[in-house]
Amino acid sequence: MYAPAGVKTDPKMPVPEMMKAWVLGDPNELKRVEKPTPVPGKAEVLVRVDAVAICATDLDVISEGPPAMIEGGKPFNKNFTPGHEYMGTVAALGPGVDEFAIGDRVTVEIHAGCGQCKRCRMGMYTSCLNYGLNYGEMDKGHRANGFTTNGGFATYAVNNINTLIKIGDEMSDEEATLVVTAGTSMYGLTELGGLVAGESVLVSGPGPIGLLGVAVAKSLGATPVILTGTRDNRLEVGRELGADHVVNVRNEDPVEAVRKLTGGKGIDYVVECSGAPGAINQAGRMLNRGGKICLAAFPHEPDLIDVAHLVRNNIYIYGIRGEGKSATHRAHAFMAAKRFDATKIHTHTFDMEELPTALRYARERIEDAIKVVVKNAR
Amino acid sequence: MYAPAGVKTDPKMPVPEMMKAWVLGDPNELKRVEKPTPVPGKAEVLVRVDAVAICATDLDVISEGPPAMIEGGKPFNKNFTPGHEYMGTVAALGPGVDEFAIGDRVTVEIHAGCGQCKRCRMGMYTSCLNYGLNYGEMDKGHRANGFTTNGGFATYAVNNINTLIKIGDEMSDEEATLVVTAGTSMYGLTELGGLVAGESVLVSGPGPIGLLGVAVAKSLGATPVILTGTRDNRLEVGRELGADHVVNVRNEDPVEAVRKLTGGKGIDYVVECSGAPGAINQAGRMLNRGGKICLAAFPHEPDLIDVAHLVRNNIYIYGIRGEGKSATHRAHAFMAAKRFDATKIHTHTFDMEELPTALRYARERIEDAIKVVVKNAR
Amino acid sequence: MYAPAGVKTDPKMPVPEMMKAWVLGDPNELKRVEKPTPVPGKAEVLVRVDAVAICATDLDVISEGPPAMIEGGKPFNKNFTPGHEYMGTVAALGPGVDEFAIGDRVTVEIHAGCGQCKRCRMGMYTSCLNYGLNYGEMDKGHRANGFTTNGGFATYAVNNINTLIKIGDEMSDEEATLVVTAGTSMYGLTELGGLVAGESVLVSGPGPIGLLGVAVAKSLGATPVILTGTRDNRLEVGRELGADHVVNVRNEDPVEAVRKLTGGKGIDYVVECSGAPGAINQAGRMLNRGGKICLAAFPHEPDLIDVAHLVRNNIYIYGIRGEGKSATHRAHAFMAAKRFDATKIHTHTFDMEELPTALRYARERIEDAIKVVVKNAR
Amino acid sequence: MYAPAGVKTDPKMPVPEMMKAWVLGDPNELKRVEKPTPVPGKAEVLVRVDAVAICATDLDVISEGPPAMIEGGKPFNKNFTPGHEYMGTVAALGPGVDEFAIGDRVTVEIHAGCGQCKRCRMGMYTSCLNYGLNYGEMDKGHRANGFTTNGGFATYAVNNINTLIKIGDEMSDEEATLVVTAGTSMYGLTELGGLVAGESVLVSGPGPIGLLGVAVAKSLGATPVILTGTRDNRLEVGRELGADHVVNVRNEDPVEAVRKLTGGKGIDYVVECSGAPGAINQAGRMLNRGGKICLAAFPHEPDLIDVAHLVRNNIYIYGIRGEGKSATHRAHAFMAAKRFDATKIHTHTFDMEELPTALRYARERIEDAIKVVVKNAR
Repeated sequence: MYAPAGVKTDPKMPVPEMMKAWVLGDPNELKRVEKPTPVPGKAEVLVRVDAVAICATDLDVISEGPPAMIEGGKPFNKNFTPGHEYMGTVAALGPGVDEFAIGDRVTVEIHAGCGQCKRCRMGMYTSCLNYGLNYGEMDKGHRANGFTTNGGFATYAVNNINTLIKIGDEMSDEEATLVVTAGTSMYGLTELGGLVAGESVLVSGPGPIGLLGVAVAKSLGATPVILTGTRDNRLEVGRELGADHVVNVRNEDPVEAVRKLTGGKGIDYVVECSGAPGAINQAGRMLNRGGKICLAAFPHEPDLIDVAHLVRNNIYIYGIRGEGKSATHRAHAFMAAKRFDATKIHTHTFDMEELPTALRYARERIEDAIKVVVKNAR
Repeated sequence: MYAPAGVKTDPKMPVPEMMKAWVLGDPNELKRVEKPTPVPGKAEVLVRVDAVAICATDLDVISEGPPAMIEGGKPFNKNFTPGHEYMGTVAALGPGVDEFAIGDRVTVEIHAGCGQCKRCRMGMYTSCLNYGLNYGEMDKGHRANGFTTNGGFATYAVNNINTLIKIGDEMSDEEATLVVTAGTSMYGLTELGGLVAGESVLVSGPGPIGLLGVAVAKSLGATPVILTGTRDNRLEVGRELGADHVVNVRNEDPVEAVRKLTGGKGIDYVVECSGAPGAINQAGRMLNRGGKICLAAFPHEPDLIDVAHLVRNNIYIYGIRGEGKSATHRAHAFMAAKRFDATKIHTHTFDMEELPTALRYARERIEDAIKVVVKNAR
Repeated sequence: MYAPAGVKTDPKMPVPEMMKAWVLGDPNELKRVEKPTPVPGKAEVLVRVDAVAICATDLDVISEGPPAMIEGGKPFNKNFTPGHEYMGTVAALGPGVDEFAIGDRVTVEIHAGCGQCKRCRMGMYTSCLNYGLNYGEMDKGHRANGFTTNGGFATYAVNNINTLIKIGDEMSDEEATLVVTAGTSMYGLTELGGLVAGESVLVSGPGPIGLLGVAVAKSLGATPVILTGTRDNRLEVGRELGADHVVNVRNEDPVEAVRKLTGGKGIDYVVECSGAPGAINQAGRMLNRGGKICLAAFPHEPDLIDVAHLVRNNIYIYGIRGEGKSATHRAHAFMAAKRFDATKIHTHTFDMEELPTALRYARERIEDAIKVVVKNAR
Repeated sequence: MYAPAGVKTDPKMPVPEMMKAWVLGDPNELKRVEKPTPVPGKAEVLVRVDAVAICATDLDVISEGPPAMIEGGKPFNKNFTPGHEYMGTVAALGPGVDEFAIGDRVTVEIHAGCGQCKRCRMGMYTSCLNYGLNYGEMDKGHRANGFTTNGGFATYAVNNINTLIKIGDEMSDEEATLVVTAGTSMYGLTELGGLVAGESVLVSGPGPIGLLGVAVAKSLGATPVILTGTRDNRLEVGRELGADHVVNVRNEDPVEAVRKLTGGKGIDYVVECSGAPGAINQAGRMLNRGGKICLAAFPHEPDLIDVAHLVRNNIYIYGIRGEGKSATHRAHAFMAAKRFDATKIHTHTFDMEELPTALRYARERIEDAIKVVVKNAR
């Protein structure tokens, strides 16, 4: 049985020594293997993974390798386990951990931060300067499960306690996997100032972060919340999540639409989730003077931007990676209070064994898939 | 004699009813005319203009018209008096003003703000939503002297008391005209967080805002401060104003230079004052994760920007227009304390009557002109 | 008919030249008189008062005079009209106003700010340095209706447009009078950081600001929200407004109760609305390290405070007067979205003519009165 | 020789296995003993202590025990080594440390923070919720050397890399011990908003934090800076460190003095370093509306405070413990730039062996002692 030194386990929830995990093979190849159940260190716990939502960046990791590897010029990382939007049950405690108990249901955020660099010390743990430095002798303790450390497409995963949120029984496994997505939207609104009640917010791009961005903005009291996109079915989901207005940019010029919907005043905040060419210029022209843009999408190509317009209008732009400043906790609080129903973006569920099928649904948007979840059988 | 109702004057400093002023004619035409001395309203004073520094945007206003006109699609504004970087002596007080006394030496900032709109009420008066609405029936009280209301290339100008700073006798007229420039640099650093002591700052572009940006960053304790540019003489001025390192980008790749100068850590803040193509991408690659860029220049062309890089690195960008959040007061405090010598960027002085010559020096950088000042004869 | 020069009126909503108003006589004496309908200036409108809620400070103003008078050592201000929590209908527009139209239903916040002083320029208009300077020659434009300028116990009142919020038809007159109270609670939470979703908040004192403080904290996602007080009926109202736990301090030690309710962690934020002796020490012992206290009540006596405890625990204290930083707009947004039902604290309504009776209900808490509203007959 | 597993040492700077250390005996008893040289863990280094400044809280620790012990109700901690204001030379590196090299001269700040709790994750490491939890099984990694973990009155000490600042050769050992004191002053000004150039600051109490508070405020551009106190010789030191005005409260009413010195405007910020009874009320009456108070002293007795005055004037109070938000780095930057000469408060130096004498000088202020430094012989 699994009983590493210094690690606390509970006979009521025995942990096997070996577990199943999906790992990267060659680019675009994913293999299901047996490997040793990982061991939590100081300030870490072992999580039994119950459910994982698939994110678009998982598809990139599977085809191109984890980003830290690529940026660092390292070879494609075989044997790495992706998957970062998961939830589960605490199964073992590392040394000194009493913040969680075995059996606690938890959901995760991604970034642990090293806790040592200048950014971590400022509370900016998603901007950890030791990003990716979590291997070997110079291990600085940074973790970004599914990106730089093994993730959730497995039976068990190790998590720093910083990355865990306790969840109640009334939240389903599926809903819990969506907390980190809502947390990313919440982080965007946090960086835009956070106090958006009564202010106008436009979300461009009805992907998962955009759709939950609508829900989070609405929860925070923003009004009106406008969603733009190209697909009516997605816009309809946005409306169900609280959008006061939706604009299909195939039918209507969004800048003109915003002008009308705001009585000529322009919008106060734009949360850009489309990554589309020209999106920033469009945002700039929608905003009133002193407005702000959050960039929550990764465009594939450089974009031609009218910088002078931004300067002339005192516009600020916040490129956010992930879900910093404990925004997942704030998102979770609204979800636990049933302020919005994040499961409206959950469309499909598969067994963990069927991960390749699940990924195909997500990649090809089969049956209008938005969020596809895989679950470990218990 | 000048004695408008409700306005307080002082016989020791008599004001004539008519004054000299340079006004716009056709594009690129500037005429010196006689016109009535303007009358300060509530919360306003009449300033006798003693000295005015020429700014690059003055050249734009003279050739293209004031920006509010252009953006508003209005005809070229004949009879408008440009000039916004001036200082002088309080010559008359509008109704209810006791914050200043006749005879006080003052320097100015540009933006008064309407005091009524949402942005002004937030303290963001340079982002006033009633920008340019200061004429006719729907006058909202916004002023931006030299841009939307008559400026300083005249004998007298009206200023809202919000836009004035008292200066001491030990500050020369010429130095006082530079407070607003330093204030713009200070505003940039304020928006970047303000607490830059011990942090690294790179200023790109050794124009007046960039050069005083070096001085202000240094005053705030930033270290190292690096200045990049293409002209060695300007870089040398930057060094005199406190730059720890200067990089001539004609000779050296600035991204590589930053890497070396920061021991591979990258820079914490970039103040972009060049407006050069590619400057933002370069800034992005110089910064460490979580770094910030202030945009203080107006590029003439749209710029192709690697947005995904900014998002991936949690980089924030602040487009600043002007000198908000009372930054001129902070800049003035450092100048009054002799923390830096702004006059190092003052190169030429002309009589107000010679304004066309002065503008030519500024435009063509004759004799390496940086800041050219014109003065009214007393 | 009322038709002052420069003021826009509408024949559909004629305004009489004279109006009824309650005014101060000797201390504790209130008289109903006829006086000229006031005239809005620049950036001001005339509001027909439809309903006014009575606040405890109204009782102080009636017995002791407006605070600015008292602090300024001025004589008791006869002929002053108190009343600051009102709502109504725009009846005339001052010069240059197009932000509102005649017939708009509006509710008010109190402080206009002078727009000229350092604090106003920072956006801190409730800390206006020209507080009370709105009379005579040195009028700086500050207004605090019901405190320094005539208030709402009348048929009409003048308001700076900064102090108005448009309300929809679905909000009743009575509910609209409560926006400013909720706005004060919101301002408190704004100054505590604003991002309280998932954080614990304790409100001490179930007066109107405390009760709506519970509602606002809950709207912002705080959890748990704990309310302490001495009267079970008031605590019950707090529970209806969203309190997760209520503690009657007559029956239970609140510090001990907080320890239990938070699993020993202590509370993150305290909003102190009781003004009770010892309340700050109690708050200090409830808070965890780094916690914050908002002071929203005016204790009648100096309080003996264990300062060293606050310092040792890095506790910050925010004394708030009123409803700054546009918090009323945020409170209104939540009320308009039906996030909470502020009318739960509205208990009685009287005709404006019966103001003395209404004040007695409020002062003596007759029939458990919380918020007593007076309405002008139409 | 000292060569613990996983720890990097350098033969050029050999470390003995045993070292000398002063340790607590009974209350007020300090003994010099031999004990094993401590071993740095992950993210830690071994520092050879070169110099230590004595702080008033050292005297408390020696007579009453470390505060975490007292608050936690634990017995007086025999064998504990106090001393927290030290500097030295890196002598060995814990596993994974490459941020420092053996031989680096460093100075320290006190608080490491656990890096795991909510406050640490927000960047508030001096408010670590696991304060004092650094022993035994439930070790959370918090360190506050000299308070909860062994400090600097020894030959060697272990420091988390978060608590170290590299210093240059041009900074003397004595000056380097003062960085953490200046850092505490800087933290106070950081929490007051940080942007104090041109704003007025009053420091009450010319102890070390107050005196360096004057220097730091001046470095940040505050003007005027006023220092109040009871001893003319201390006030004179304050003047040398940059105070524009000093007020001996034995001779002059400080509230009245402030009124005069600020032309009736009142002060913008008060940094309270005296801990004297009535100091907060006095601060409140010195401040203008919207002003702020930092509490940097620990009064021995509860203080009777006019809370209503604070609320009515929208005054905020910041109780700071220690030197958070990397303020030591900012203080160091100003000291390295020779912006002020902190050694003006250094009055005496003794050998480490003479610590009891040094403590007596500090306690009894023999020969006007301000900062007394002890040094290890090399």
